[in-house]
Amino acid sequence: MRPIITLTTDFGLKDGYVGSVKGAILSIDPQAQLIDICHEIPSFAIEEGAFVLGATYRTFPSGTIHLCVVDPGVGGKRRAIVVRTKDYFFVGPDNGIFSYIFAHEKSYQVIEIKNPKYWRHPVSSTFHARDIFGPVAAHLSRGISLKQIGSFISNPKRFSFARPVMTQKEIKGEIVYIDKFGNFMTNIPKKYLKNSQWEFAKIKVKGRVIQGLTSHYGDVKAGSWAALFSSSDLLEIAVNQGNGQNDLKLKKGVPVSIKFSGKV
Amino acid sequence: MRPIITLTTDFGLKDGYVGSVKGAILSIDPQAQLIDICHEIPSFAIEEGAFVLGATYRTFPSGTIHLCVVDPGVGGKRRAIVVRTKDYFFVGPDNGIFSYIFAHEKSYQVIEIKNPKYWRHPVSSTFHARDIFGPVAAHLSRGISLKQIGSFISNPKRFSFARPVMTQKEIKGEIVYIDKFGNFMTNIPKKYLKNSQWEFAKIKVKGRVIQGLTSHYGDVKAGSWAALFSSSDLLEIAVNQGNGQNDLKLKKGVPVSIKFSGKV
Amino acid sequence: MRPIITLTTDFGLKDGYVGSVKGAILSIDPQAQLIDICHEIPSFAIEEGAFVLGATYRTFPSGTIHLCVVDPGVGGKRRAIVVRTKDYFFVGPDNGIFSYIFAHEKSYQVIEIKNPKYWRHPVSSTFHARDIFGPVAAHLSRGISLKQIGSFISNPKRFSFARPVMTQKEIKGEIVYIDKFGNFMTNIPKKYLKNSQWEFAKIKVKGRVIQGLTSHYGDVKAGSWAALFSSSDLLEIAVNQGNGQNDLKLKKGVPVSIKFSGKV
Repeated sequence: MRPIITLTTDFGLKDGYVGSVKGAILSIDPQAQLIDICHEIPSFAIEEGAFVLGATYRTFPSGTIHLCVVDPGVGGKRRAIVVRTKDYFFVGPDNGIFSYIFAHEKSYQVIEIKNPKYWRHPVSSTFHARDIFGPVAAHLSRGISLKQIGSFISNPKRFSFARPVMTQKEIKGEIVYIDKFGNFMTNIPKKYLKNSQWEFAKIKVKGRVIQGLTSHYGDVKAGSWAALFSSSDLLEIAVNQGNGQNDLKLKKGVPVSIKFSGKV
Repeated sequence: MRPIITLTTDFGLKDGYVGSVKGAILSIDPQAQLIDICHEIPSFAIEEGAFVLGATYRTFPSGTIHLCVVDPGVGGKRRAIVVRTKDYFFVGPDNGIFSYIFAHEKSYQVIEIKNPKYWRHPVSSTFHARDIFGPVAAHLSRGISLKQIGSFISNPKRFSFARPVMTQKEIKGEIVYIDKFGNFMTNIPKKYLKNSQWEFAKIKVKGRVIQGLTSHYGDVKAGSWAALFSSSDLLEIAVNQGNGQNDLKLKKGVPVSIKFSGKV
Repeated sequence: MRPIITLTTDFGLKDGYVGSVKGAILSIDPQAQLIDICHEIPSFAIEEGAFVLGATYRTFPSGTIHLCVVDPGVGGKRRAIVVRTKDYFFVGPDNGIFSYIFAHEKSYQVIEIKNPKYWRHPVSSTFHARDIFGPVAAHLSRGISLKQIGSFISNPKRFSFARPVMTQKEIKGEIVYIDKFGNFMTNIPKKYLKNSQWEFAKIKVKGRVIQGLTSHYGDVKAGSWAALFSSSDLLEIAVNQGNGQNDLKLKKGVPVSIKFSGKV
């Protein structure tokens, strides 16, 4: 079986950076199967990278190694880490990029990358994805043990996410991500609502009010607003066959609320 | 032999959607070789997706599975289908996306995807590429039979393409696609013209007149307009080493004509 | 071992062109492992393609075949070539795209592609990546010899790069590339400076003066300018966690100088 290594970065696609990382990996493990998750994370946007990785990693088969590098502190004092969960390995900087992994997974181990034996030399001070993270991922895919990489640590950096606030009549959350279609993803999970509440929910964002949750985009007319649960089971606000973001121009953190009226 | 699965979508590259589909496929068939055709189809642009797939699929080896998802009706009543031609499988929504396949291929079978055994569960209502189409493609690559997927249907959705109109002195067609280089692809096929007519052809688009067909871009000076036959054997109008679209700002459907003058 | 074929082009990602090349390759060698280096080279920008390839190719394992197609002269008189170095093969047009290879490698052989046996037929006049370069790369990966492809030539096209000018008190170079992060890469190599000179270097670009070279971005405050050596060991000018190009709007060829003051 060829091991899978996924890549999530803010390197973009206009330069040779992603190619260089792949070359460095394949020079160590030519059998690795490289799968791009995303390279268009906005430059230095750690939280956005964390969200994309968090929404994606669980679709991959057990044993997959997820390389994730959004690394404004490259070459400086931030640590380099490997995170080991039940099913996956994660390799990247210790800057919060794995916050959703820590939030989703029941247990995990974190190793600080210390052993230069598994790096590419000479190590540059601006491109650790090529010189440290990629090579370590490649060695993991060849089967080295965690102990060979470095030493266990207990305090990896972790964002504290804004959690939705729930009262009997209202749930207050916020926008956490805006996708290519201009759809707004929020931090309000599906499990906060009973099915019987969907019809009576009144969803508000930036003055816009949507009456009732629907199950798919096509439940409202093309061009109309819909509130539904996303493929990650989070409240999503979208324009059917349109682009909500082109209309509202919102940012992460904008409040979203669900109020319940009538009988529930 | 590792089976090949290609991917054509309007998911873009800024989110984790393409990665999620790949993860779902590899979780079922870790041996699949995933090849991106295009993920920058404009959102919901079924016809554009159909054109890109139609221009590309025949370069792949026999046995390739083409996954194509531009799916504004996701979660609604549109059917999910597999198309089987002599050489290929196609998996996607039944919304016209396979129209060029139906037009190009002499014979094909169409199966409506019905059997949830081959889906990823729970099935979301907004992301069938991850939950239905990708998994079905992965199972096909592992060798399940068409009958296991669902039942044969005879009326898949199919666009009626505008066909060029031909008289003795003129061919009237239209622009069907504009590429990254700003080149205009039309619906006028090479076989409509005799070689002896190339020299005497007068090509018109939006007031611009090009005298004579050439065989490659460099037959005209850099910055000049050329009319030639594209790599798909369709009339193409281009600026040599320039970008025609930056200049003319045309849309799909704009008329293009070829008139013949002098002796033919 | 599956042979690796990398792809570097100006084809962009919005059309099916890259997919077509991959299909053509896989139809000849289904075992090839295809790795994208970059498809967002600006249209016809041979020098930019040459730079990206030159900065990337050496990370790949020995035996890798690098396909590189930025080809404004497609279908015309420019030759098609294969370059063989100690570790790699390169396939593409003879238009200067391999200039950095010729500059970096001690020895190499160049073969003009002549033998239509290894092409895809019919050969179009606008898409040689699909019809000639890709197929030749695929046949190379299957093990054909250079002699089977065509005949050796001794005068491939090669850009003359601007070399930095060095006096005792100053090095004058120029910007050669601007990356996705808005960082400026210059043609001044690390080896031109002694470590002891770093502290006393005064770097100038477009009126902006940076005092002292640093070893990584984080040595200056977020938002401040830094001069350091890039992952390719060239002088790089960057804004820590910012985008220098958004601020200065420079182009390739803009002069950059390093002056030395104080004791060195």
